[in-house]
Amino acid sequence: MTTPTTATSHLAAIGTALPGDPVDNATLAKVLGINEEWIEVFIGTRTRYFARDLGTGVVRWSLADLCAQAAERALAAPGTDPSEIEFIVLGTATPDTLMPATVNHVADQLGLDQVPTFQLQSGCAGAVQALGVAQAMIASGQYRTGLVIGGDVCSKHLDLGRDVSGAAPGDLVNYVLFGDGAGAAVLTDEPRGQRVALRHVLNRFTGLGRKPGQIIEWFGLADRYDDRQALTEDYKAIEESVPVMAGEILWEMLGELDWDADQLDYLLPPQLSGRMTRRITEELDVPAAQDVSCVADTGNNGNALPFLQIEKLLERMTDGERALAVAVESSKWIKAGFALEKI
Amino acid sequence: MTTPTTATSHLAAIGTALPGDPVDNATLAKVLGINEEWIEVFIGTRTRYFARDLGTGVVRWSLADLCAQAAERALAAPGTDPSEIEFIVLGTATPDTLMPATVNHVADQLGLDQVPTFQLQSGCAGAVQALGVAQAMIASGQYRTGLVIGGDVCSKHLDLGRDVSGAAPGDLVNYVLFGDGAGAAVLTDEPRGQRVALRHVLNRFTGLGRKPGQIIEWFGLADRYDDRQALTEDYKAIEESVPVMAGEILWEMLGELDWDADQLDYLLPPQLSGRMTRRITEELDVPAAQDVSCVADTGNNGNALPFLQIEKLLERMTDGERALAVAVESSKWIKAGFALEKI
Repeated sequence: MTTPTTATSHLAAIGTALPGDPVDNATLAKVLGINEEWIEVFIGTRTRYFARDLGTGVVRWSLADLCAQAAERALAAPGTDPSEIEFIVLGTATPDTLMPATVNHVADQLGLDQVPTFQLQSGCAGAVQALGVAQAMIASGQYRTGLVIGGDVCSKHLDLGRDVSGAAPGDLVNYVLFGDGAGAAVLTDEPRGQRVALRHVLNRFTGLGRKPGQIIEWFGLADRYDDRQALTEDYKAIEESVPVMAGEILWEMLGELDWDADQLDYLLPPQLSGRMTRRITEELDVPAAQDVSCVADTGNNGNALPFLQIEKLLERMTDGERALAVAVESSKWIKAGFALEKI
Repeated sequence: MTTPTTATSHLAAIGTALPGDPVDNATLAKVLGINEEWIEVFIGTRTRYFARDLGTGVVRWSLADLCAQAAERALAAPGTDPSEIEFIVLGTATPDTLMPATVNHVADQLGLDQVPTFQLQSGCAGAVQALGVAQAMIASGQYRTGLVIGGDVCSKHLDLGRDVSGAAPGDLVNYVLFGDGAGAAVLTDEPRGQRVALRHVLNRFTGLGRKPGQIIEWFGLADRYDDRQALTEDYKAIEESVPVMAGEILWEMLGELDWDADQLDYLLPPQLSGRMTRRITEELDVPAAQDVSCVADTGNNGNALPFLQIEKLLERMTDGERALAVAVESSKWIKAGFALEKI
């Protein structure tokens, strides 16, 4: 969604949650029976976190658990108060169940009740969409404070019992690219806490007539024994399109904001993998802006990523500084991004 | 979400889509090897529509197909123009895939591009939540016209290869309660087309500390051979709580709107099953208001239901008349509803 550049909402606090200890490439390579070098060279991700135990396969954290943990951290920050939360928006591609929506279990864990809850089904653009919905709700004048959450847990897709040592790279990549995690932000009408204005949210479907770059299937009672592919990626399309789309998003947003590229203090680029993100950042070529990335340390944990980036950003950002985040959802080609300014 | 009672958005057009021919109880009973009388007495639903062929099991319509068909009908109505659509919000419990979100395939089928798309994961409150998000986006002043869609296709849950003749009633009910379908509405800032003001949207999580009344699981690549239950309902909790919650929603909304019960021309009650809906309508006891129900003819097709009810309502509604819709999501106990007034 393209919004006016006047700030109608503000980021007051942030919190994130990563499950357990980081899993390094040596450990992951050993579990999967694959080559450690391959992960480092072709994916460029050093560590990631998993909500299930790699040894036993036991799921230790649900998506609701991680989202509630991230939200609790945001709500414990100065300038925020759980009793002020008037709505919750969660973005995820991997809900714990289809019903209830996971956001409702998160509300329950947080002790929140009598508030509207929303859960957006989405991939890499989901956290931005959730920010956009929250921004519109506050801009409507009907709400003052909301909780925005993003998270993903890939445990239902990670088949640890399978021998992937001989798998094709396009299949194998699903085992080494992803991670689990969650993030949360408190959005307010007036500047509070971190005092970061949300200056712009971009969320635009651009997939008309374009083949999906990524498909993730789910199975039900009736079709779960079907022998069809569960995860399909068109890596060639992703490698070709994402850097181009990232550049278009960056320059379009700078134009909408009337910001010069050399006025940009921080750039939060798309977080595909350590390698792809480095490549995209180089191609975006905004040398004045400091890069704020996390994927090489956290793995691609989907809807958690923008919150992890914002958390890193806020450690450095000082009054008057500006940041721009760029996200691309390759599933059906969504352009997304947002602009922040510390005031 | 509780919104001010001043109309900030208007329903300009409606469209619905039901797949294929109605399936009557005699046909369904024969396919499942169960008793036709039982369906009539305990469920009270006469017909439903399925997106897959009951004989061959072939899926003939995806959720995206049905949603696009419903939206095309809404967009073909007088006073609407596809080129004016600035955003799309879809509510569903049964997306075709986890990624891309189905709403993006719907946009593609409709020929829409360069607009924000949102997909809410939700059950019986989903259509109301989608109306609420659209209402907030229009109220924010950033958008004038949006497309709101709701739909569900239960084909992945309906295991036709299974012998259910000896199944427990609590299991069997999943085979005879549900149906497939979709609905869509065009929401505008100014009165247009049908000229129906959306006076109020209620969407409130009330599930703190309450056990879910309904759980629907999905399976991924890794856990699809697990032998766990896919659909779980607590019918006792649903039968006990839904009528009570429906009454609370009705009287709370009338209070917020400052409407007397005898000023209400139409009541759109929760659509659980033919039998439950009749019981709830009797208990709500608003004799002045005409009942607008569809579930006995369409089956419980989830997020499509409020649109099917609105379509029936608009055939009768005249200037100055008022309608109130009540919905309860039993998965994690969401109170929902909306108020309409023809102007």
